[in-house]
Amino acid sequence: MASFHCLTFLTDYGLEDGFVAVCHGVSSRIAPNALIIDITHLVPPRDIRRGAAVLAQTVPYFPPAVHVAVVDPGVGTARRAVAVAAGGSVFVGPDNGLLSWAVEAAGGATAAVSLTNRALWLDAVAVTFHGRDIFMPVAAHLAAGTATLAEAGEELDPGSLVVLPRPASRVRDGAAEGEVVTVDRFGNVQLSVTGADAARAGIVPGALVAVAGRGRELTVPFGTTFGEVAPGELVGYTDSAGFVAIAVNGGDAARRLKLHPGTRVTLSVTELFITTAFRFSRARDTIED
Amino acid sequence: MASFHCLTFLTDYGLEDGFVAVCHGVSSRIAPNALIIDITHLVPPRDIRRGAAVLAQTVPYFPPAVHVAVVDPGVGTARRAVAVAAGGSVFVGPDNGLLSWAVEAAGGATAAVSLTNRALWLDAVAVTFHGRDIFMPVAAHLAAGTATLAEAGEELDPGSLVVLPRPASRVRDGAAEGEVVTVDRFGNVQLSVTGADAARAGIVPGALVAVAGRGRELTVPFGTTFGEVAPGELVGYTDSAGFVAIAVNGGDAARRLKLHPGTRVTLSVTELFITTAFRFSRARDTIED
Amino acid sequence: MASFHCLTFLTDYGLEDGFVAVCHGVSSRIAPNALIIDITHLVPPRDIRRGAAVLAQTVPYFPPAVHVAVVDPGVGTARRAVAVAAGGSVFVGPDNGLLSWAVEAAGGATAAVSLTNRALWLDAVAVTFHGRDIFMPVAAHLAAGTATLAEAGEELDPGSLVVLPRPASRVRDGAAEGEVVTVDRFGNVQLSVTGADAARAGIVPGALVAVAGRGRELTVPFGTTFGEVAPGELVGYTDSAGFVAIAVNGGDAARRLKLHPGTRVTLSVTELFITTAFRFSRARDTIED
Repeated sequence: MASFHCLTFLTDYGLEDGFVAVCHGVSSRIAPNALIIDITHLVPPRDIRRGAAVLAQTVPYFPPAVHVAVVDPGVGTARRAVAVAAGGSVFVGPDNGLLSWAVEAAGGATAAVSLTNRALWLDAVAVTFHGRDIFMPVAAHLAAGTATLAEAGEELDPGSLVVLPRPASRVRDGAAEGEVVTVDRFGNVQLSVTGADAARAGIVPGALVAVAGRGRELTVPFGTTFGEVAPGELVGYTDSAGFVAIAVNGGDAARRLKLHPGTRVTLSVTELFITTAFRFSRARDTIED
Repeated sequence: MASFHCLTFLTDYGLEDGFVAVCHGVSSRIAPNALIIDITHLVPPRDIRRGAAVLAQTVPYFPPAVHVAVVDPGVGTARRAVAVAAGGSVFVGPDNGLLSWAVEAAGGATAAVSLTNRALWLDAVAVTFHGRDIFMPVAAHLAAGTATLAEAGEELDPGSLVVLPRPASRVRDGAAEGEVVTVDRFGNVQLSVTGADAARAGIVPGALVAVAGRGRELTVPFGTTFGEVAPGELVGYTDSAGFVAIAVNGGDAARRLKLHPGTRVTLSVTELFITTAFRFSRARDTIED
Repeated sequence: MASFHCLTFLTDYGLEDGFVAVCHGVSSRIAPNALIIDITHLVPPRDIRRGAAVLAQTVPYFPPAVHVAVVDPGVGTARRAVAVAAGGSVFVGPDNGLLSWAVEAAGGATAAVSLTNRALWLDAVAVTFHGRDIFMPVAAHLAAGTATLAEAGEELDPGSLVVLPRPASRVRDGAAEGEVVTVDRFGNVQLSVTGADAARAGIVPGALVAVAGRGRELTVPFGTTFGEVAPGELVGYTDSAGFVAIAVNGGDAARRLKLHPGTRVTLSVTELFITTAFRFSRARDTIED
């Protein structure tokens, strides 16, 4: 029976309680040889969109794996518990959209089941902790190869899975419109506009870009990394996930610009400027092959 | 010689320093094949009761393991360093009560030693870091099977181990009295009253419960999960560890009610209300077998 | 080909994003059997000195390993990416001084290369995420034994590696002068003065020490651990990394004394006091062998 070496785990459980650890304990009993990798457990409580974004940007770097994700404000209510096959991996979690962007990034769902086979659950199931009692034991069985996807429950139509709406993003009239998707630990602001879409609006390294949002507008040079501008200066670039981001070299752009997830932003080129103003050393090394 | 695949680790060391990592390093030298699972390292500094509560609620979900726990304000003083056998597992840490609730949850101590065999310690022992220099190396030897419990030090009477007083909890005159034990990341308030004791006072799903504490009283419906009440509403329920808890659906009950660990609370039924006011969908699925 | 069982990972990536996890994912594809140990990912953003201090104090407790460290404000600019052999281990990261104190603690660099072999990188390299795209895949190849140090890139002179200046520390006129290096989670203040240097100035357990800094002076008993003084009292001691530290028993010395990394401090003995004022129970057990 197919099995997986790697089992990943993403939640909003936080790290100060024992919630994450009991799930690891459950897994270690069922799949003692699985390699469990925590993606993050610091998704803001109940923030399904943030969890979905982190999962989708992380999963492509993993080998085929069982990915367990639990941000589940509706735990114990009518929302389904599901396992979804996509791109050689299996995603396990609540059917509330959390998995949807990652499933799409993995190539789309090829099969899905509703987790109804109680033989794979823990003996006692708490209404408020399906991560411990349903999701993790089922995932561990899938990783260990002691159960198949089909055995985990009733087959369901992948087209019936809940899909989160994508963050707004479009290019028109030479401008790229989008919204803030995430703010990372450094205060770098990730927009919903891909680097490819930005390029269609002329936003490429060397351009000077007008960034409009929250009724204000400012001008930011577009480059490839923070260190190309002086300390404390703003810079736009295509980030490591392929999205346009705005950073401050050595500082916190989100705080400076008061940008939060959901804020609408429009980008447009004001002029092309002299690229030697940038320190483009080693830039040749870092263009994608 | 007996060995353990799994070694768990709970401390108040935090994650910003290298304290946890050096202990992992020590373990990886002595027991390179052990699976180390971090329970939490965010126990508030020196909060033995919080550490004891998290450990006791977590350990039952693990396979037989060596459990290392270090919340140790008396490090380097006369408090004993101990290893305690209970329920097929071994608990290693300071003898200050930290281990006591978990040992009890595992079925009670069947043997115990004072960690006096310096051959199992690191060569140099710092007065202020017994986690690195004594507890973890001893635990790793026990996990690897390169030492037995008896070899770790002098046998001691399990009855002499320090036991933390239990949080207050009793049922009388139809009311359940207890105190706040923990507040989790979501702001859910866990009381010392078990769901079973609450039921003896008539507090069951469908009841409307008066919660008195800090000189105030409010009325909360008792259900089975957050999603049964409207967003922003309070709900009582039996949590995943078997204790009565109070939550706000989508919010932070501890902040709203200003409840902290140690706050005394009394619960009593005011009336039984119509259960269809709750959205009890799938409730049948979530009753324990 | 040589390989390493253990791969450690230290960054300033934080734990709320997926940055650390994607690096684990990359490693699990290249070196699925490596034991990855996270040292910390909570180095303050871009704080190379803090990262260097934590790494240097942690690494000595590990078996020979590949140590990946990334605090890299200059990512994508001209700073070199390097791998450095020292003491049986290999250190991988940016050549900005981050690795230098740990390399010295491991006995000094015996060989070094600039990471120029793109065959070991991920296929696509983002300018702003060399941890994922260069450092971790190269390190994983070194751990798995699928590449040697020499194969990772062009050999370079270890003497050309960037070395961070050491924190100031000297003994003169019977006083030990230094600066605050780190403040840990407990608020314990670690100085740049070693316990050995302090002893040369007469600062040993039993001494009463004048601590001068920020234009103020206070007197602190020097002992061996927190529990030797009454709760709330200050105490100096040689910490578990061998440096003089100042703590409050049960409290936060950094907050009380308003001491931060970089603050200059001078220590001198005012008098020897009666050691029985300390509770030196078990002190004999904790002297280094």
